[in-house]
Amino acid sequence: MLELRLVQGSLLKKVLEAIKDLVNDANFDCSATGFSLQAMDSSHVALVALLLRSEGFEHYRCDRNISMGMNLNNMSKMLKCAGNDDIITIKADDGGDTVTFMFESPTQDKISDFEMKLMDIDSEHLGIPEAEYQSIVRMPSAEFARICKDLSSIGDTVVISVTKEGVKFSTRGDIGTANIVLRQNTSVDKPEEATIIEMNEPVSLTFALRYMSSFTKATPLSSTVTISLSSELPVVVEYKIAEMGHIRFYLAPKIEEDEDESKPQV
Amino acid sequence: MLELRLVQGSLLKKVLEAIKDLVNDANFDCSATGFSLQAMDSSHVALVALLLRSEGFEHYRCDRNISMGMNLNNMSKMLKCAGNDDIITIKADDGGDTVTFMFESPTQDKISDFEMKLMDIDSEHLGIPEAEYQSIVRMPSAEFARICKDLSSIGDTVVISVTKEGVKFSTRGDIGTANIVLRQNTSVDKPEEATIIEMNEPVSLTFALRYMSSFTKATPLSSTVTISLSSELPVVVEYKIAEMGHIRFYLAPKIEEDEDESKPQV
Amino acid sequence: MLELRLVQGSLLKKVLEAIKDLVNDANFDCSATGFSLQAMDSSHVALVALLLRSEGFEHYRCDRNISMGMNLNNMSKMLKCAGNDDIITIKADDGGDTVTFMFESPTQDKISDFEMKLMDIDSEHLGIPEAEYQSIVRMPSAEFARICKDLSSIGDTVVISVTKEGVKFSTRGDIGTANIVLRQNTSVDKPEEATIIEMNEPVSLTFALRYMSSFTKATPLSSTVTISLSSELPVVVEYKIAEMGHIRFYLAPKIEEDEDESKPQV
Repeated sequence: MLELRLVQGSLLKKVLEAIKDLVNDANFDCSATGFSLQAMDSSHVALVALLLRSEGFEHYRCDRNISMGMNLNNMSKMLKCAGNDDIITIKADDGGDTVTFMFESPTQDKISDFEMKLMDIDSEHLGIPEAEYQSIVRMPSAEFARICKDLSSIGDTVVISVTKEGVKFSTRGDIGTANIVLRQNTSVDKPEEATIIEMNEPVSLTFALRYMSSFTKATPLSSTVTISLSSELPVVVEYKIAEMGHIRFYLAPKIEEDEDESKPQV
Repeated sequence: MLELRLVQGSLLKKVLEAIKDLVNDANFDCSATGFSLQAMDSSHVALVALLLRSEGFEHYRCDRNISMGMNLNNMSKMLKCAGNDDIITIKADDGGDTVTFMFESPTQDKISDFEMKLMDIDSEHLGIPEAEYQSIVRMPSAEFARICKDLSSIGDTVVISVTKEGVKFSTRGDIGTANIVLRQNTSVDKPEEATIIEMNEPVSLTFALRYMSSFTKATPLSSTVTISLSSELPVVVEYKIAEMGHIRFYLAPKIEEDEDESKPQV
Repeated sequence: MLELRLVQGSLLKKVLEAIKDLVNDANFDCSATGFSLQAMDSSHVALVALLLRSEGFEHYRCDRNISMGMNLNNMSKMLKCAGNDDIITIKADDGGDTVTFMFESPTQDKISDFEMKLMDIDSEHLGIPEAEYQSIVRMPSAEFARICKDLSSIGDTVVISVTKEGVKFSTRGDIGTANIVLRQNTSVDKPEEATIIEMNEPVSLTFALRYMSSFTKATPLSSTVTISLSSELPVVVEYKIAEMGHIRFYLAPKIEEDEDESKPQV
């Protein structure tokens, strides 16, 4: 039997909004340690990994490991029916073919049960090895979202270049070129407004803006985002989920065989 | 001659927004006692009844009973041109074929006249007998609107079931089932947040969600809604209009010949 | 070399939003006295004239007069990437074929460069003679925008009639007629809320509402608008740009050969 009670139910609503456009169907894996998901996007280019640790739940009962296949769009429709202050409980019977989402209003005057059929989804769990990254950028998540949105109006790809002084986002399109430079800045009033560069080696990598923009749907989950870059590895775009875990997005850099199309000359 | 001056002109704007999607053309009936409308929706399934009593107007002159046929969409276009704080006066000459809406800004610096052609509309006035209802639910109108919206994302019909403890709204669709239970709750800080059940007999009736959702367009008119239910009668969904009258929507329950399609098994 | 630094960069963003729907491509003319533009709308009916005087810029360097042809839609896409509090600098080399827009965030932690290709645009500069107008109306710009929007829901043309007492805006369409009268009103708390009529001669002129509505896209630039009317001249709809200049829109009145179509009988 599975029963997971999350007082801050809005977190789960935000998680679904963050991933439902990228992934159609996925298995949620539940074990004693937490509630997690790993899935490729529908075009098999980007990878999403979600972790909500058991300690983050008010009540967490998971008698044995189960994997529940869900259509994320349908799940999102149901979670949208939860109020932002509602407590959400996820329930499932062992061997059952449904999952129930229960929503309790703060006053307990409104109780909703939404029951959804589970799906059988083939999936292989990829082992993602821990890695050293050449550069790690931590910055305000809203600023990263704004930059992806702005550059998307000019071009299709973004070159992210990190030096000690800062991080540069560049694109090129039919109407011209754009370069946005953020300076390292750690002396701000609010720590979540800092831009912090941890650089072992300078790095300059090209990515499809479409995916980067899609990752920024997770912005409401965290005030900061961490971007980990290495020339031989997929970039990791990570949003922490307060006290509970994270969403990580992985995306391979574009090979720059065709300079004109894939990379601004900056 | 007809001249009705309504200081809180925004009420009339809200009335039109509440009914214009349900009803295309309708006769407004004006008599010494008030300004009223009764009309079937365009698919002849639901009935709308509006009453604005003469006492609610600052000035009310209606020399003889008249019935004015109006296209509600056009009337709405004109009323949208009134400011939210404007005083609205409705004017018509006996035997004339136009109606004039005059809008006065609070400072009297802006005066607008909108003149609209009247239409000849055949309509029969249905007598609606007073009735005893098995159950009457009074609840916050925004909560009722939210429930109709949420259930509409899952299914096409709603079962409303009333017991002493509360009222349950249920639906079923391709992606699953949903049950929302509101507890009777009279001890709230603000009376308009109460959910009050007046039950003579328990009742459980099925309705088309499309119509219920359409009725909730009247939500801005009142903070509470009253739902009166009996197994042999159309449901009445009533929104009071402060000190002046009401909008009532009537809708027959669905006959549950086909359990699978028309009723969630809850 | 050209280098124009505008501390209140949002002004330039608003200027582009005001004219980009009316004009596709245009030459920006830069001289020692200021940065200006004059262009016909794409259907060659209305004329736009923009002036930003050099004194309004924090830094203004323009070594020799140049005319830079730009696609306003592309320019707008780039300016939308500037933050509302950003400082915008426009840069171009003499004889170059690009212009660069640089955006600096108030904290200087984010610096963006957007480079756009220039275009060759044939244009003749019309001399617009100073003229005496029969009537000049100054009114709140938001009120003028609201009136144009409201009348557009009823008809296609607007008759603007000025008398000493006030200004009347009228239209007529399939669903009826509308007249909106604003009284002269100079004794208001805030000067920008005044409606001031300067009348040498009463005047009544008809204009296409589509253009008038389009001009009101400049509303965010100024809290007031000035409308100058004469029976033999194009109307001038002017929005002042704080301390720096103005946008003026010119539109010829409609000839009222066909009373029924072009003019409400009011």
